[in-house]
Amino acid sequence: MNEVEELLKNIDGQFKDVVGVLIVDRDGIIIKSTINEVVETIQNYGMSIAQIVEMSNQALKENGEIQFLRMKTKRNEFIVVPDKEFMLITILNANNPSLSHGQHALSSN
Amino acid sequence: MNEVEELLKNIDGQFKDVVGVLIVDRDGIIIKSTINEVVETIQNYGMSIAQIVEMSNQALKENGEIQFLRMKTKRNEFIVVPDKEFMLITILNANNPSLSHGQHALSSN
Repeated sequence: MNEVEELLKNIDGQFKDVVGVLIVDRDGIIIKSTINEVVETIQNYGMSIAQIVEMSNQALKENGEIQFLRMKTKRNEFIVVPDKEFMLITILNANNPSLSHGQHALSSN
Repeated sequence: MNEVEELLKNIDGQFKDVVGVLIVDRDGIIIKSTINEVVETIQNYGMSIAQIVEMSNQALKENGEIQFLRMKTKRNEFIVVPDKEFMLITILNANNPSLSHGQHALSSN
């Protein structure tokens, strides 16, 4: 699992707006995270996004599975790459130039 | 509505992989479309995507409304910009280099 952790840290360090990177299972349960303190909000993100992917797969089922999802809300941006068993979720800060790296609303590494 | 039609045609013409551009209401009913023949599949896309946006708004409700959504399936890619009453949906062909413009699975202008 060391390689996975390195990969996550790489994604996390590459962009200053990255709040954190999660690997969740298909139910949204967090397996790995670059966010030290997995607060309820982060766990909820995992569950909500797993739900959205599941629901999108059903809604667009004749189109094949969702391979990539990018979703921007007022507060965050989520980049999601679902795989068979797991899902990679990158959480970014959306449009918040006043918050510098490490000081954003959600604590990150 | 002439300006809207021009805008849609512009988006449609700009990228060779664009299958079509739709404006749908929040229930997914097609208001405007660059696709001449609105087949059932296209109407279903409108409905499915409206559903996905609605559901994502609920799932991430403390995050503010979805402002932008990009979703890739095996067959298509959808770029969605929701607004208060309407939603702009651009449908693209995903990874199908063997199909040239105008010959893709869904008829387009």
